[in-house]
Amino acid sequence: MTMQHFRMYFIAFLMFPFLIFAEDGSQLWLRFPAKNGISADKIITKGNSPTLNIARKELSSHWQGQTVELRTDKSLKNFKDGYTIKSIQNKIIIASAKEIGLLYGVYHILRLQQTNVSTTNLSITEKPSYDVRILNHWDNLDGTIERGYAGHSLWKWEDLPKTISPRYEEYARANASIGINSVVLNNVNASPNMLREDYLKKVKILADIFRPYGIRVYLSVNFASPKVLGGTEDSDPLNKNVQKWWKDKASEIYKLIPDFGGFLVKANSEGQPGPQDYGRTHADGANMMADVLKPYGGIVMWRAFVYSPSKDDRAKQAYLEFVPLDGKFRDNVIIQIKNGPVDFQPREAFNPLFGALRKTSEMVEFQITQEYLGQANHLVYLAPLFKETLESDTYSDGEGSTIAKLTDGTLRPAKITAISAVANIGEDANWTGHHFAQSNWYAFGRLAWNHQLTSEQIAEEWITMTFTDNEKFINPVKEMMLTSRETAVDYMMPLGLHHIFAGGHHYGPEPWGDYKGGRPDWSPVYYHQADKNGVGFDRTKTGSNAVSQYFPPLNEIYGNIETCPENLILWFHHVPWDYKMKDGKTLWEELCYKYDSGVHEVIDYQKIWDQMEPFIDSQRFAEVQSKLKIQSKDAVWWKDACLLYFQSFSKMPIPYDIERPVHELEDLKKIKLNMGHHN
Amino acid sequence: MTMQHFRMYFIAFLMFPFLIFAEDGSQLWLRFPAKNGISADKIITKGNSPTLNIARKELSSHWQGQTVELRTDKSLKNFKDGYTIKSIQNKIIIASAKEIGLLYGVYHILRLQQTNVSTTNLSITEKPSYDVRILNHWDNLDGTIERGYAGHSLWKWEDLPKTISPRYEEYARANASIGINSVVLNNVNASPNMLREDYLKKVKILADIFRPYGIRVYLSVNFASPKVLGGTEDSDPLNKNVQKWWKDKASEIYKLIPDFGGFLVKANSEGQPGPQDYGRTHADGANMMADVLKPYGGIVMWRAFVYSPSKDDRAKQAYLEFVPLDGKFRDNVIIQIKNGPVDFQPREAFNPLFGALRKTSEMVEFQITQEYLGQANHLVYLAPLFKETLESDTYSDGEGSTIAKLTDGTLRPAKITAISAVANIGEDANWTGHHFAQSNWYAFGRLAWNHQLTSEQIAEEWITMTFTDNEKFINPVKEMMLTSRETAVDYMMPLGLHHIFAGGHHYGPEPWGDYKGGRPDWSPVYYHQADKNGVGFDRTKTGSNAVSQYFPPLNEIYGNIETCPENLILWFHHVPWDYKMKDGKTLWEELCYKYDSGVHEVIDYQKIWDQMEPFIDSQRFAEVQSKLKIQSKDAVWWKDACLLYFQSFSKMPIPYDIERPVHELEDLKKIKLNMGHHN
Repeated sequence: MTMQHFRMYFIAFLMFPFLIFAEDGSQLWLRFPAKNGISADKIITKGNSPTLNIARKELSSHWQGQTVELRTDKSLKNFKDGYTIKSIQNKIIIASAKEIGLLYGVYHILRLQQTNVSTTNLSITEKPSYDVRILNHWDNLDGTIERGYAGHSLWKWEDLPKTISPRYEEYARANASIGINSVVLNNVNASPNMLREDYLKKVKILADIFRPYGIRVYLSVNFASPKVLGGTEDSDPLNKNVQKWWKDKASEIYKLIPDFGGFLVKANSEGQPGPQDYGRTHADGANMMADVLKPYGGIVMWRAFVYSPSKDDRAKQAYLEFVPLDGKFRDNVIIQIKNGPVDFQPREAFNPLFGALRKTSEMVEFQITQEYLGQANHLVYLAPLFKETLESDTYSDGEGSTIAKLTDGTLRPAKITAISAVANIGEDANWTGHHFAQSNWYAFGRLAWNHQLTSEQIAEEWITMTFTDNEKFINPVKEMMLTSRETAVDYMMPLGLHHIFAGGHHYGPEPWGDYKGGRPDWSPVYYHQADKNGVGFDRTKTGSNAVSQYFPPLNEIYGNIETCPENLILWFHHVPWDYKMKDGKTLWEELCYKYDSGVHEVIDYQKIWDQMEPFIDSQRFAEVQSKLKIQSKDAVWWKDACLLYFQSFSKMPIPYDIERPVHELEDLKKIKLNMGHHN
Repeated sequence: MTMQHFRMYFIAFLMFPFLIFAEDGSQLWLRFPAKNGISADKIITKGNSPTLNIARKELSSHWQGQTVELRTDKSLKNFKDGYTIKSIQNKIIIASAKEIGLLYGVYHILRLQQTNVSTTNLSITEKPSYDVRILNHWDNLDGTIERGYAGHSLWKWEDLPKTISPRYEEYARANASIGINSVVLNNVNASPNMLREDYLKKVKILADIFRPYGIRVYLSVNFASPKVLGGTEDSDPLNKNVQKWWKDKASEIYKLIPDFGGFLVKANSEGQPGPQDYGRTHADGANMMADVLKPYGGIVMWRAFVYSPSKDDRAKQAYLEFVPLDGKFRDNVIIQIKNGPVDFQPREAFNPLFGALRKTSEMVEFQITQEYLGQANHLVYLAPLFKETLESDTYSDGEGSTIAKLTDGTLRPAKITAISAVANIGEDANWTGHHFAQSNWYAFGRLAWNHQLTSEQIAEEWITMTFTDNEKFINPVKEMMLTSRETAVDYMMPLGLHHIFAGGHHYGPEPWGDYKGGRPDWSPVYYHQADKNGVGFDRTKTGSNAVSQYFPPLNEIYGNIETCPENLILWFHHVPWDYKMKDGKTLWEELCYKYDSGVHEVIDYQKIWDQMEPFIDSQRFAEVQSKLKIQSKDAVWWKDACLLYFQSFSKMPIPYDIERPVHELEDLKKIKLNMGHHN
């Protein structure tokens, strides 16, 4: 340390003594005991690749157990980038067909060490559930993030390629530690400029940094890029000039990034250009791109999130557009389907497109960023939501045709298996805005690797690694996490209610929203259909008949109010206010108790959390405490807004043992939050 | 009805059909069945005075029982303006030495009828507790009201004397119905202009309207009036020119208003001029005025609410200034003393000046307007507060020397007995802003008439008259009213905390308030004295020794932390955070539970009120419901502000079974309400 450095350090020390011990969450779950790993001679490995060097460094920095041998073993190639871990004599042998598998194995044993699992007598075999485990960043080139709640983008496009943030590598390491092996760097509402030469050179830098961590880079592309950037007369996928432009562009990309992953495309959706602009189909568009990527091993992830301004139920439209195209896609195209047919709601019925495309690869798109789940203010652990979708039985190939088995290659051998989620990562010190939102990044990675893990296992791992191994902390916090998604459903939109958010920012409630002049399906009233008779969207035969898109017996189960699961009853039915629920309450009462219960759960979380103060650092304690206060106020806001509004139809009293609304409906209607959907 | 009137009426009907049935609270408790009283021949009375005519009109409009005879009877003059009511054969005889007593008697039987009390076999004797039962209006000449929360002033000075609002008579009738017989029209922070000839002519109009209802008019006067209005060289009470000016002014007033009541004076207090400006005493000032009023039977109510900018405990100052003057006041001077020694706090120890002036008449000044009790937003029934003061035993003349007995002439025969309260009345349709604030006007009147009535009796009368005689309404609402003052104490400032309000408006909490540069005793931190050791104002011998102003044994009881009532413990003691309270909790815990309990009481009121919907009109139901929402939010605001702030000293956790604070202290500190202390 030079004297000058020392002086600066000393001043900083005087000014911000606490910063030295700041616990800002920047370490994520990677809180290994620092700089006291095993000595170099206890790490046995051949070769000197960047990936192996990282593995070696992690061991020498953090591993405190037996000698570790890292062994590349081509006979394990059926396990893809999976690995085995075996204890033999006083040694742990990690083996994989791929070097990245060895690094994953290293993170595995480090996790065992960190969570106090014995690391002697290991005999572990790990094979990933999906080949492509991919984060979708909705980051714009100007540094904003669509639906980003943790500050601006990590990617400093203006500084690249010259200046390189240390966070690029930290980001790659965090992903590798949980098995994420792919990232889409930019927003699906893509700027054509992403494909400009200068931007590709910046992308190359990131790809180079990510590569040793086993991460391939993908890009969202704008379908109109040839016309915008290349000056072609149009962007018609059947236009030879357009095809040539894409071919040349692919060649340019792969020269810079030989392991480039491929394209993610949002086309003919919410105003984005696409093949339909030229009378072509989604298949025409996707195949044109697939053809140019094919020679390099690239793939096209084509999004099924489409809904035309037709009068038909929005929940039906992806199915209606894509099912007729089944079998028409190239084998390096995979259809990326949001978990539900509307849009990342707190709870949706699963998307009926899953299983309906029999000759086309399908993948799930989850949303880690909490667009509809309190954003960076609410503690909502999403593993239960992810699991709920993955374990949904579509019955497409008979009982047991879960979405997990349909997408992981179990039921229908697929050329590509993949799983994606919209990232919640930004430049905030703690990466995700809310400290507990880190758990959703973590949970997605862990489930993408192994969708059989339970939400509880993942929560326990994450808590232990991120906070403490004290069971007095782990157990109550785990309980809070595990119930948190259902709690959010309860205080936001229980019983199958959906999309009654305020327009634009999707943060607070606006069940009264009725945007005249806009598309009906952009208004909350379209989704809840409340009137004096009842509430809910009739998707049965007497209504939109969306139930018919589900395989038997689900079409019957969902279509019958008596058999429809009550947590989706208002998704599928317009239910009378006095309808008798299974617990004997009327629908109206049930709705009231659900909202109230959601509120009280959050209030209980506050009590739980405050008791956690002795177990962790004061900074993260206080920051989470503060977020819980917001969540608690928001829960009351939701309850009051929804009950007071729906009461104007039900004309029934809120049960008197429930805490009364504290707001006036008219006041709540006046709230206009100054929030964009870009950060 | 002319055609034109009919047309306007019809249009109004079309536009506002609901207005015709509007229940805006304007009728107060005077909701007699309209226009179906007894016939004129069943009302027996001699004479034709305005007062008797009113009595007759009330009976013929609203009385549905037996024949009523109104009989003036000089033999009843010991009962002053009291009365007797006797059933003789099929007749009710109301007798009084004074005509106004007959009108009071009429309101009495109407009240019995309205509250379903049998009106046969009556044998009632009523004698008022106080001669002067007076409302103090803090109304300014510009139409604003200091600490007024029900709109602007009733008195339309600009329109008077020509234009006369019908509300002047409605106001007089409401007062007469509960026995109030005196009003001070203007703010104690008095404009000299009040005594200008043009204003006096306006006052005369009001006096003329009030007179038949038995109400005498008083005025607050500015001590500097002679100099300001009369051009005297000063306003020194010993200056002959000044004395002459007042003498002439009195003569002028009494010519216009022969029954003028007298003056209310705030002198040498909070910047108001007074005799001390000329080195004279309060007695010098009061006596000078008393002398000019004496020939006409007028009195001077001289306020003891004084506190000089000395370093001594503000709670001690009225006592220190006035006790030395005991015996020096004329017999038509009465010292008007606020119930507590600080300023109308939710709870104060009683003012030690009560009983300490042995040769001087004393009267209580209460505050009906809820300056420190949630203003027109909180439901706080004040009868229990009034009763608490009146029943406080000062021990001045031995055990049983309650403030009631000291001021009503029981213990010390007095020339004048009086009781006053600052009114909460404004031009709002419902007169008092909050529908339940009407009950405080009502309760003051009833207690001024008979301080032996219980809070419960008064509440039950008021509820029945104002809302409904349905017991399903009366009982829960009465329960809510009876507990409401203690509830407000709990969520605002329990255990003897006081004056931790935000400066200026006195609405919300500001325990952190520390107004540098101002007087220390204008800052909340002066009153709570919180530090790392504890909280509370040490008024024992080790502190300000204010306890010494109380008669034995109170000085000992209050001065000893073990015997001091816990509801005043922080008024008299600086108590360690871990002090063990009688229930075994620490002081800190007790404080937390008190605040929390206050919050939950209000939440319970909301539940109770919502169940009252079937029993009353929708307008008043909804308006009270809406106010309770505000109160409930404010209660949480108070709890969070005070607990989070005091916690920064106590460093102790809020007990974990208590709902956690929902606000951030730093956010609460930023709240600056845009409220003046004038409406």
